[in-house]
Amino acid sequence: MNFTLNVLGTASALPTTERYPSAQVLDVHGRLFMIDCGEGAQIRMRRAGLSFLKIEHICLSHNHGDHVFGLFGLLSTMGMLGRSSKLGIYAPKSFKPVLDFFMDSFGEGIKFEIELVPLEMSEPEVVYENRTTELLAFPLNHRIETFGFMIREKQPPYNVRKEAIARYGLSLSEIGTLKRGEDVVRGDVVIPHSEAAYIPYVPRSYAYCSDTAPFPELAGWIKGVTLLYHEATFPADMVEMAEKTFHSTTLQAAHTAADAEAGRLLVGHYSSRFPSVDFYLDELRSVFPDTDLAHDGDVVEIPYLRNL
Amino acid sequence: MNFTLNVLGTASALPTTERYPSAQVLDVHGRLFMIDCGEGAQIRMRRAGLSFLKIEHICLSHNHGDHVFGLFGLLSTMGMLGRSSKLGIYAPKSFKPVLDFFMDSFGEGIKFEIELVPLEMSEPEVVYENRTTELLAFPLNHRIETFGFMIREKQPPYNVRKEAIARYGLSLSEIGTLKRGEDVVRGDVVIPHSEAAYIPYVPRSYAYCSDTAPFPELAGWIKGVTLLYHEATFPADMVEMAEKTFHSTTLQAAHTAADAEAGRLLVGHYSSRFPSVDFYLDELRSVFPDTDLAHDGDVVEIPYLRNL
Repeated sequence: MNFTLNVLGTASALPTTERYPSAQVLDVHGRLFMIDCGEGAQIRMRRAGLSFLKIEHICLSHNHGDHVFGLFGLLSTMGMLGRSSKLGIYAPKSFKPVLDFFMDSFGEGIKFEIELVPLEMSEPEVVYENRTTELLAFPLNHRIETFGFMIREKQPPYNVRKEAIARYGLSLSEIGTLKRGEDVVRGDVVIPHSEAAYIPYVPRSYAYCSDTAPFPELAGWIKGVTLLYHEATFPADMVEMAEKTFHSTTLQAAHTAADAEAGRLLVGHYSSRFPSVDFYLDELRSVFPDTDLAHDGDVVEIPYLRNL
Repeated sequence: MNFTLNVLGTASALPTTERYPSAQVLDVHGRLFMIDCGEGAQIRMRRAGLSFLKIEHICLSHNHGDHVFGLFGLLSTMGMLGRSSKLGIYAPKSFKPVLDFFMDSFGEGIKFEIELVPLEMSEPEVVYENRTTELLAFPLNHRIETFGFMIREKQPPYNVRKEAIARYGLSLSEIGTLKRGEDVVRGDVVIPHSEAAYIPYVPRSYAYCSDTAPFPELAGWIKGVTLLYHEATFPADMVEMAEKTFHSTTLQAAHTAADAEAGRLLVGHYSSRFPSVDFYLDELRSVFPDTDLAHDGDVVEIPYLRNL
C-alpha cells in the first residue's frame, strides 16, 4: 500500500547540468501516475528503476515544451517494448493536435490504445477513479491554459472493532450497519458508530501545482492535502518577475501550503539563474516550516498510517 | 585549429541507463556541427560544456524519434537564450512537416532564422561550405530515407618554403605561381612546385554513417576518411536481424572501414539487448584493428598534423 513520489526533474524551462525539465511519477499501490513529462523523463525513469509498462496515466499540466517533450520518446519506447494495455493521458485540449501529429509522424510502432482526456474544467473534477484512488484536475493560473492535479486515496471502508463485536454480540446485519457508517440502534440502546467502527488507515493525497501564479481558490481546492508539490520558480525578491511570467515565489508557494493546511510542502521548478537554490529554504520555512526543496532523483514516501 | 568529436549518445532506439539516443557534436575550429539530436542531447551538451549558441549546423540522418526528439528542446532553449544567428538544418525532406508543426505549436520564442536544407541526393553532395570546411551528405540504406554526413577540412592553400625563396630569389609573381600549385619556369630552368611548396597541414575528415545496412558504394564515397563513425548495432552472429532492420553488424562496419581505408573506426548505436558491448571489439578488430567502441561522453580529438 505504498504512496511514493519520484521526482524526475525540477528545472524550469532551461534545464541545467543537474536539473532535468519537469517530470514526476507517483506510485500509488504499485500503479504509476506520471505527472508532466519533460525531455529525458524516460531515461530518468530507467535510472529510478521505474517500469514504463506500469504507467497507467500521464497527466500533462500544460502545453509548454519543458513539460511535454519527453512524451514522444516515452510513448515510442512503450511501443517498442510491446505495450498492449491502455494508457490514459489527461491534458489541456490544445494538446490533442500535438498528440495527433506525433502519432501520424512517429506512431507507427504504437499499438496500444491511448485515451486522451481533454481538460477544460473551471474547478476540481474527478477525471479518473478506481476502487481505491481518484485523480482530480483543476485549473491553474499560467500564461496558457494549465492544470493542476490531485491524486488521493478514497476513504477506505469502515472496519468494525473486534472488541465491539464481542462486547455487544453484534449480528452480521448490525456489522453491515456500522460498515455503512451508521450507528446501531437496539430500541433505546445506541451503539455509536464512532466507538465501534474505524477507518483502517488515513487516506493520503498528493497535489501538483506547477506552473502557476498564486490565486485565491487554489488553497481551498487542495485543502488538507498530505503532500503538496508547488512550484517556487523565484525567490521572494523576484515577485515582479514571477507575476510577469505567471509563476510563484517561495513565499507565495509557502502561503498556499499554509492556507491549504498541507501536511508537507515540496517545491521545485527552479529558475536556472541559480545553480543552487538552498537559499530558498529560509524564505519558505519562515511561512511554512515543513518544507523541503525537491531535487532530481528524490524519492518521497508518504507513510501508510494505520488507525487502531 | 581543433577537430573534435563529442559523442553524446550511443544507444539505438531504446535508451538504457548508460546510453542516450544518437547525438554528436563535431567541433571544427570552434564552430559546432551537431549530427543527430536524440532526446536529452541538450542536457548532454551542457554536461560536455558545449555552447548551444555555437552550433551553426544540425545534420539529421533520418526521421526516427531516437535521432530527432532532442531537437525540440534544443531549439526552444536556443530561443530562450536569445539566439539571433542563423541555424542550418540538413535533413531528409520528410522532416519539413515535423519542423513546421513544431514551430507552429512551440516556436513562439524562436526568433532566429532556421534554414532547412532538404536532402534528396543519390550520391555525395556538398550541402554547406565555408573557407576551410565542407559538409557533404550522401544516402544510406535504412528502412526509411536516411543520409550520412562527411565533414572535412578543405585542402589548405600552399605555403612556399622560405629556403626556396632565399635559394632561388623568388619574385612575388613566382611565389604566386607556386601558391596556385604550378611550377616556376625560368627559360630552361624549372623550379618544381613539389620542391618549393607544401600544404601546411593534412586536411582532416569525419564521416557519420548511421543507421544503415552495408551497401557497395559507401566505402568509395568516404574513401580515406580520417575518422569514421559507423553504427554496429548488432554482433556478427545477428546478421539476419541486422538485415531485417536495415542495420549493420560489427563485421559489416569493420569491412566498410577497411574498404574505405579509414584512418580509424569508432562504432556506436548499440542494441539495448547488451548492457555491455565490450565483446563487439574482438569481432571489429579482427577486420579493422584501429577500432574503438564509442561511449556516451567520449571526446575524440583528431590531431592537427603540420607538414614541414
